[in-house]
Amino acid sequence: MSQPRILEVRTKILKVNDETARAMRHRFVEAGVLVVNVVSSPGSGKTALLEETLTRLKARGMSVAAIVGDLETDNDARRLARSGVPVRQIETHGLCHLEAAMVEERLAGWDLAAIEILFIENVGNLVCPTSWDLGEHLRVALLSVTEGEDKPLKYPGLFNTSDLAVITKVDLAAAVEFDRTLALANIEQVRPGMPVLEVATKNGAGVDAWIEALLARRVTLLKSR
Amino acid sequence: MSQPRILEVRTKILKVNDETARAMRHRFVEAGVLVVNVVSSPGSGKTALLEETLTRLKARGMSVAAIVGDLETDNDARRLARSGVPVRQIETHGLCHLEAAMVEERLAGWDLAAIEILFIENVGNLVCPTSWDLGEHLRVALLSVTEGEDKPLKYPGLFNTSDLAVITKVDLAAAVEFDRTLALANIEQVRPGMPVLEVATKNGAGVDAWIEALLARRVTLLKSR
Repeated sequence: MSQPRILEVRTKILKVNDETARAMRHRFVEAGVLVVNVVSSPGSGKTALLEETLTRLKARGMSVAAIVGDLETDNDARRLARSGVPVRQIETHGLCHLEAAMVEERLAGWDLAAIEILFIENVGNLVCPTSWDLGEHLRVALLSVTEGEDKPLKYPGLFNTSDLAVITKVDLAAAVEFDRTLALANIEQVRPGMPVLEVATKNGAGVDAWIEALLARRVTLLKSR
Repeated sequence: MSQPRILEVRTKILKVNDETARAMRHRFVEAGVLVVNVVSSPGSGKTALLEETLTRLKARGMSVAAIVGDLETDNDARRLARSGVPVRQIETHGLCHLEAAMVEERLAGWDLAAIEILFIENVGNLVCPTSWDLGEHLRVALLSVTEGEDKPLKYPGLFNTSDLAVITKVDLAAAVEFDRTLALANIEQVRPGMPVLEVATKNGAGVDAWIEALLARRVTLLKSR
């Protein structure tokens, strides 16, 4: 079996990615743009939350943009573009994650200094995106109440590498008998101390707190320069 | 970039997997065991449906077994074992799919001729399991109503390689405003003619039809020998 060889090749590719990501992060900090990498299962509500987020931030006069990754289709980019902010789609054609170089390519022509927050909606996957740094400052793991409380334990890689967890679709919590205490305990077990927000994009619950968390993070970024 | 080289290595590993899977499929047919590979996003209800399925088939006097894949934890194996049938867990420790050799290893000590249906619950992922043949006769793609109607278009690889689609959690369809017509049209677009079942494990809706579909498929397998 070729396992050691493929591991070696994989390590090399990841190293190249890390270098690209590091350079991009530096560029983002210089330009004062906070970059948020949003990761979750398919159907956890990434696009719905981002559409609402872009709309609200734009209404507050902020300059925001988004890059969306999917295996196929540009449905999500079209959904996000309804918010009226610049949106670009990456179609990975089978690849289960975004890579730093793909994001870098999609930045072409954008004046980073004119963007305050850039959102990257990763491919819907709890495994592959974990190893790929995109130069973000904030990695957000979404977990919908419909997925079950055990997901942090089953996919510790994602929750370990994230800076913030957002429990989504909390309006459905009762219907799916979501055990909130257990879910929070499971997140805490995998990533002690990670802040957790709870939102329902559909009725707006918790969205203000999410927006405030993003704005506070950007202030911290600007102060760190 | 090392892309051509990694592709070459990957192709070789997939070829080895295909050979192992082919040999296993032959063994399964000889032994008269129908093998069902269940694939979906995390949290689509694979384990809940399988627990109910194993319980019902056992109650009908059938001899069934299951192998469960997860990155970490043996929670799902313990859940399935409550049905009283033989269950084994594969922990992939970070790998986003099962491979034929992993399944083969877990078969050790089981008398295949004494099993009528073997279920394999794949890792929760809509991308990676697609390329890995496990020697199954029936690949089943689960799609829960909470994930959204667009998933077949965004993950065509899985739906293309599946033999049957099962829409799960249909008891939540109204709560999440699931557009059934659109979902069926999207599946049909990606995989014309694929049968689609609709179930709600929670209230039992559609579970009989699912069980009958499995039994019918096993009869076909036995006739084909």
